[in-house]
Amino acid sequence: MIRLADIAGPADLHALSPADLRRIADELREAILDHVATHGGHLGASLGTVELTVALHAAFDSPTDALVWDVGHQAYGHKLLTGRRDRFGTTRKLDGLSGFPSRTESEHDAFGVGHASTALSAALGLATARDLTGGTSHVVAVVGDGALSGGLAFEALNNLGRTRLIVVLNDNGIGIDPSVGAVGRHLAELASGADPSGGLFGALGLDYLGPVDGHDLAALGAALTEAKARTRPVVVHVRTVKGKGYGPAEADQVGFHGMNPFDKVTGLPLKPSGGGPPSYTDVFAAALVELAAADPSIVGITAAMPSGTGLNRLMAAFPERGFDVGIAEGHAVTFAAGLAAAGLTPVVALYSTFLQRGYDGVIHDVALQDLPVVFALDRAGLVGADGPTHHGAFDIAYLRAVPNLVLMAPADEAELRDMLFTATRFKGGPSAIRYPRGAGPGASLRPEFSELPIGRGEIVRSGTDVALLAYGSLVGPATVAAEMLTERGVSAAVVNLRFAKPLDGELINQMAAACGRLVTLEEGTVSGGVGSAVLEHLSARGQSVPTLCLGLPDRFVAHGTPAELARLVGLDPPSLAVRIADWLSTVQPRP
Amino acid sequence: MIRLADIAGPADLHALSPADLRRIADELREAILDHVATHGGHLGASLGTVELTVALHAAFDSPTDALVWDVGHQAYGHKLLTGRRDRFGTTRKLDGLSGFPSRTESEHDAFGVGHASTALSAALGLATARDLTGGTSHVVAVVGDGALSGGLAFEALNNLGRTRLIVVLNDNGIGIDPSVGAVGRHLAELASGADPSGGLFGALGLDYLGPVDGHDLAALGAALTEAKARTRPVVVHVRTVKGKGYGPAEADQVGFHGMNPFDKVTGLPLKPSGGGPPSYTDVFAAALVELAAADPSIVGITAAMPSGTGLNRLMAAFPERGFDVGIAEGHAVTFAAGLAAAGLTPVVALYSTFLQRGYDGVIHDVALQDLPVVFALDRAGLVGADGPTHHGAFDIAYLRAVPNLVLMAPADEAELRDMLFTATRFKGGPSAIRYPRGAGPGASLRPEFSELPIGRGEIVRSGTDVALLAYGSLVGPATVAAEMLTERGVSAAVVNLRFAKPLDGELINQMAAACGRLVTLEEGTVSGGVGSAVLEHLSARGQSVPTLCLGLPDRFVAHGTPAELARLVGLDPPSLAVRIADWLSTVQPRP
Repeated sequence: MIRLADIAGPADLHALSPADLRRIADELREAILDHVATHGGHLGASLGTVELTVALHAAFDSPTDALVWDVGHQAYGHKLLTGRRDRFGTTRKLDGLSGFPSRTESEHDAFGVGHASTALSAALGLATARDLTGGTSHVVAVVGDGALSGGLAFEALNNLGRTRLIVVLNDNGIGIDPSVGAVGRHLAELASGADPSGGLFGALGLDYLGPVDGHDLAALGAALTEAKARTRPVVVHVRTVKGKGYGPAEADQVGFHGMNPFDKVTGLPLKPSGGGPPSYTDVFAAALVELAAADPSIVGITAAMPSGTGLNRLMAAFPERGFDVGIAEGHAVTFAAGLAAAGLTPVVALYSTFLQRGYDGVIHDVALQDLPVVFALDRAGLVGADGPTHHGAFDIAYLRAVPNLVLMAPADEAELRDMLFTATRFKGGPSAIRYPRGAGPGASLRPEFSELPIGRGEIVRSGTDVALLAYGSLVGPATVAAEMLTERGVSAAVVNLRFAKPLDGELINQMAAACGRLVTLEEGTVSGGVGSAVLEHLSARGQSVPTLCLGLPDRFVAHGTPAELARLVGLDPPSLAVRIADWLSTVQPRP
Repeated sequence: MIRLADIAGPADLHALSPADLRRIADELREAILDHVATHGGHLGASLGTVELTVALHAAFDSPTDALVWDVGHQAYGHKLLTGRRDRFGTTRKLDGLSGFPSRTESEHDAFGVGHASTALSAALGLATARDLTGGTSHVVAVVGDGALSGGLAFEALNNLGRTRLIVVLNDNGIGIDPSVGAVGRHLAELASGADPSGGLFGALGLDYLGPVDGHDLAALGAALTEAKARTRPVVVHVRTVKGKGYGPAEADQVGFHGMNPFDKVTGLPLKPSGGGPPSYTDVFAAALVELAAADPSIVGITAAMPSGTGLNRLMAAFPERGFDVGIAEGHAVTFAAGLAAAGLTPVVALYSTFLQRGYDGVIHDVALQDLPVVFALDRAGLVGADGPTHHGAFDIAYLRAVPNLVLMAPADEAELRDMLFTATRFKGGPSAIRYPRGAGPGASLRPEFSELPIGRGEIVRSGTDVALLAYGSLVGPATVAAEMLTERGVSAAVVNLRFAKPLDGELINQMAAACGRLVTLEEGTVSGGVGSAVLEHLSARGQSVPTLCLGLPDRFVAHGTPAELARLVGLDPPSLAVRIADWLSTVQPRP
């Protein structure tokens, strides 16, 4: 009797009996459940693809055949079957396995991922290269229905042409939140079997197989065998249930997407939440609802992240004024520009890393037309366990280059409320507010809102030897570091810059004159970030104050806990104190 | 008898007879042809939409009803009918009308544009705002078939829901180059009338009207009247002929897309081309074919710009190794990542401004996986008459923030050849080469290629008072400015930086030590650009050399001739000389 523990690699699945495959699938499901219950991580997606994963590895010959997983939330089973079972307990931990497929981790991960909708384009690249080099292997892209709402996936579908390529559509009707839009409705029609022409896929010239019950190993095996025989692109439409086989996860598919450790029997978290300060997301969500209640021009937009960004609160309070557009950040931005052009005040709530997908719209549709769109950028800075695909490392640099944009970052939750208020009141052009993942320092929240003067920072700690110019999430650590520096005989002032653009040049000049040495601190890449803006300002003024720029390094940062990563990049208070003290010992003040 | 000259605004079309509308259309076509023959500009698209434009303005009530044009190449007729006839001769000239719709130019331009595929998202924003504010007006998006290959358009289609909105699909089977992909083939099927269900559009839950002969005013009027009565989103499929009514433009639709002044009778350019140095595009195109002939791993990808980027040369020489993916920059980048993951050497040829649409792929799919994709960024810097939507102002800043990317820019055409060679040989990760629109200084081209050391610049002129650190297209102007500075008694060294990343820190240190004052020069935004990189380097080294950063200002730059724009932003040699001399008079060297 073959057990999961006997599977050293996917080749071991090739000759197994249906009963053996079924047993492996059952053990795989249990292993995923046990792991996530113990360690936390992404649960529902991988539970739903257990049978699909077993069937794929039984039907195909990885790594000769390439499996390209979209997003990668669903790839835990794939990792367990491809020689990583012994290291699986390290998943999402510092120096451990990634939570996503990663080319550096395994030859079975044909393409790294984390963001959605990339698999079809990548797989087409792999398949095209195979054809150009005379290869005969299979290339399989596994794509969720939610990912099809992303324009990138459609661009790829439009380009599949006659390339031999298998698209496995893992249709569970939900992404992280329920799927939205016309494609999702159409997939439901297709799943009903009413349209044998393949509907959308047929219109795009693709073969269509399905619908297939994604938890029936025999049906999956038959469909994949048929797909392997096709010589042109074929879509295998597989219906799965997110969270399959674990009652609580089937019953609450949104809640069981990504988990902290929980009790397997009850499904309840091991550590009850609450008690600590609210997350930035919660503070944003509540403030947006309050502001929208007072200002009917305010509308909210998110891209498949109502729960992640907190926009679900606005959608519940004002259903007609909150828009989830699917995994479609480009559309979110340009749609917002249209709303703003008609006089509304759109707040686009995205994770920092995902605005990278709407960058052209920020420039071409929003900023160039000076439209008052507010970007609320959650998960700015290091996000922890999700790692390098998800760190919000670049938004300061890429947004700072855009004319007409106001960029701000709150030092705490209370300031987030005021910044959101300020941004929704600012009609001179677009603005963006970046704030980190998780909870803030726990500042007390006033019920009223205050409008902040655009482009003005504030001194939060006085000092004479050096001025720490801190942006957003680093105001707190800078203040703690300043206290630590006192013990080293250094008197450090701390400034809450608040605005990366426009910079408070006057305040910077004042601090330069008073302290003669500056340190900039930001949770974003140093290349082109706030520190760089300060250097540009000083250079343009003909000032030559010694300045140390601290932020994220010019490399991709790994995954780990937030505290581990802060130490890794030297942005925790003790590291900051040491780095600043060391630097001060090398430079003389020059006011 | 009503003539075009009698039309002060679109309302004047509302009560006209069919014969009057026909005459207006004919005069409009003649006016567009006369204008472009005299002044140059975009011809074919606007000739093809003459009847559609007249029909739209006859059927709708602009500006109460909003017309949103995609791309905007086709909107010359719209401009002529909306009160801009007297200023039409200024189109694409400094301080004149834009070549595209622009909100600041006319209340009839409901949404500004220049890039493709934005109209549906913007129109959905306008329509949604109308519904939220209780309006009753119409919102019409006019979208080409080529624009439907862009994922942004698909994201919008997926989100139209039940919003009352009219999509006019201007299907001429061609963008700037012939349309590619499954959607184009499907539209041809739809146009044949074989599929009354609306095919792709029906699958997405949209009403479908058509196909309609886009040069038949009566048919257009009837279809638009029917569309106005719909209470849910409707696609009006209009078939047009690009260049309609002008033989040479119908016969050569690619050649007559964008024109220099030409003889209306023969269709031949007034000033024969040739004689001057080749364009950077030509040099790139020829070099790519040469390199591809020697290295079978090289493949090329462009996004609907085979002729614009010169990739058509590779596509002709090695048809199976050149890919036009449609207006799908995101896919171009991620597809390239897939090709590179399989061991090929993809060269992605895009305009700088359009890589903004593939930014997430550059980070998430290419750089994070250290894949050796080469980005050839044409039209980097100021592009002239196309103006702010098309200037390549931001690529240095937004790419410099990305780890693992090598960024380079040639000082002349000869260096472009060597950089392309260097990039295709560099397997350590991705690289990007930016080069300007038009011809270079006319450097003589050697038949062989030389590999350049990564991250090394070169001194091109010695001097003692100041070092001009120039990047790419500004090496030439910096050298001329240095000569001019001689007349002012200033000895200026000039460095060709070649690489914005990695910077040649050693050479910069050497120049700082030798000259004590630095000037950085780049044809990109100063915010976060090369100058900023130099400041970061100096700051990290604890150096305080006075440094002046010259580049594009932190605002959107208008349209005009390249020479006018260079003067406008102070990057022409005389302006540079004055700015540098003025600055030198204010700062002392500090080595």
